[in-house]
Amino acid sequence: MKVKTITSSTNPLLKKIRSLDTSGGRKDLGLFLVEGVKMIKEALVKNFELVDIVTSKSFFTNLGQSDVLTEMADFTVVEDKIFKSLCTTESSCGILATAKKKSLGLKEILQLQARVLVIGECIQDPGNLGTMIRTALAFSAGGMILSKGSVDYFSPKVVRASMGAIFSLPIAADVDLNRCMDDLRSQGFRIFALDANADRSLFSEKFSSPTAFLFGNEGHGLSAKLLEKVDDALSIPINSESESLNVAVAMGIVLCHAANSRR
Amino acid sequence: MKVKTITSSTNPLLKKIRSLDTSGGRKDLGLFLVEGVKMIKEALVKNFELVDIVTSKSFFTNLGQSDVLTEMADFTVVEDKIFKSLCTTESSCGILATAKKKSLGLKEILQLQARVLVIGECIQDPGNLGTMIRTALAFSAGGMILSKGSVDYFSPKVVRASMGAIFSLPIAADVDLNRCMDDLRSQGFRIFALDANADRSLFSEKFSSPTAFLFGNEGHGLSAKLLEKVDDALSIPINSESESLNVAVAMGIVLCHAANSRR
Repeated sequence: MKVKTITSSTNPLLKKIRSLDTSGGRKDLGLFLVEGVKMIKEALVKNFELVDIVTSKSFFTNLGQSDVLTEMADFTVVEDKIFKSLCTTESSCGILATAKKKSLGLKEILQLQARVLVIGECIQDPGNLGTMIRTALAFSAGGMILSKGSVDYFSPKVVRASMGAIFSLPIAADVDLNRCMDDLRSQGFRIFALDANADRSLFSEKFSSPTAFLFGNEGHGLSAKLLEKVDDALSIPINSESESLNVAVAMGIVLCHAANSRR
Repeated sequence: MKVKTITSSTNPLLKKIRSLDTSGGRKDLGLFLVEGVKMIKEALVKNFELVDIVTSKSFFTNLGQSDVLTEMADFTVVEDKIFKSLCTTESSCGILATAKKKSLGLKEILQLQARVLVIGECIQDPGNLGTMIRTALAFSAGGMILSKGSVDYFSPKVVRASMGAIFSLPIAADVDLNRCMDDLRSQGFRIFALDANADRSLFSEKFSSPTAFLFGNEGHGLSAKLLEKVDDALSIPINSESESLNVAVAMGIVLCHAANSRR
């Protein structure tokens, strides 16, 4: 283990880490931020390559020698105050890492021969996207496909809300969904849109063959162009006083029902 | 309609509005923030009393004379830049209001004779709580009971994530849940805890009699003391690679199943 100490808050490494809070910075460097012990361990288990590990002074002082982290990494230690300025959460975790981004293409997702895929069109809220990734993994979806115009899934808020699922779920981003529909169909997928206005209930359907579920933007739902291309649109029956469900909640209900209907 | 203009950014009204971003400020004044046209209209429909209405100059200039908002309110107009400093979101909405808080006690919730109630113990994340409120309303839960130590449900993030459901769902906060268990039972409620470690599946159960569902803190789940008091603990079957579901997603699956099982 090698330990380096940084005392200047204008050190280039700190500047680099701060830039990873923006999608531009992540794109330029091909890196993203992983915050906290639990997430860093998860990234390691899933073979993500960590480039830098930075800890606060007090975290480093308390680090047990037996900890898996001390066995394999070089650390940069910074004053607690500087560390706090690097964190994207108020409750500072004491340790963060930069990791190399990994991305899949649509082709690779299709080669996985998943029984269930989830597709998001222009998902905007990073908390929602992270929760969708967590939910998709929990219900054994084989992968997620995101349209152009969705929020960057390597944003710190997405990583955090995914609770580490981002390191396990195969994800393809920036996908042209119009073409994707054709590719999915030629692979034998049935494609269902979740649409609050659809007459047909989710619960009228069983999902025995390979299925892709399509979820739309938080404010505007799915584009008319995509709705034309699906096999059917389904809704989740809710109280007439309510307009819609949160998109991650809707995904949970859909994937849970799909899993139950296959049992 | 009366219109007042404020040009000084240190005006007491602006100071008052800014204080509503903190739970202390909301407690002292008995008010909370409502941001955006849609939410303000929802608050009016549900008979919340609006105390101040503030708009940005450019929003006010574009306000149509036929709009319901112009018919009933006195406005304070401020420069766009000042308005932006009042908003709790980056995408400024052009209009906000202060509204009088309304709270129910546990007694009042119990008098509603709901068939389904939801209970949260120490829910911490305002986005989660807002989504739980939205989800509870969508599946016709009769009300929500929150423990002491839960995040303030009048926080701007909760109000926003609830998508207006906060104006409709009966909510009792700061409740002693240990006592609450006894009160619920004496009213004929069965009480189920959602617990990722429970052996029994949610889907093994039907919910024909009045039921209360108990959801725990995001990090720590439910306290052992409360788990002792429930009729049974239930889990939602998920992939062994996943630790747990987001609490609002779990609530969606539970309430949707409960609604389906009553049909």
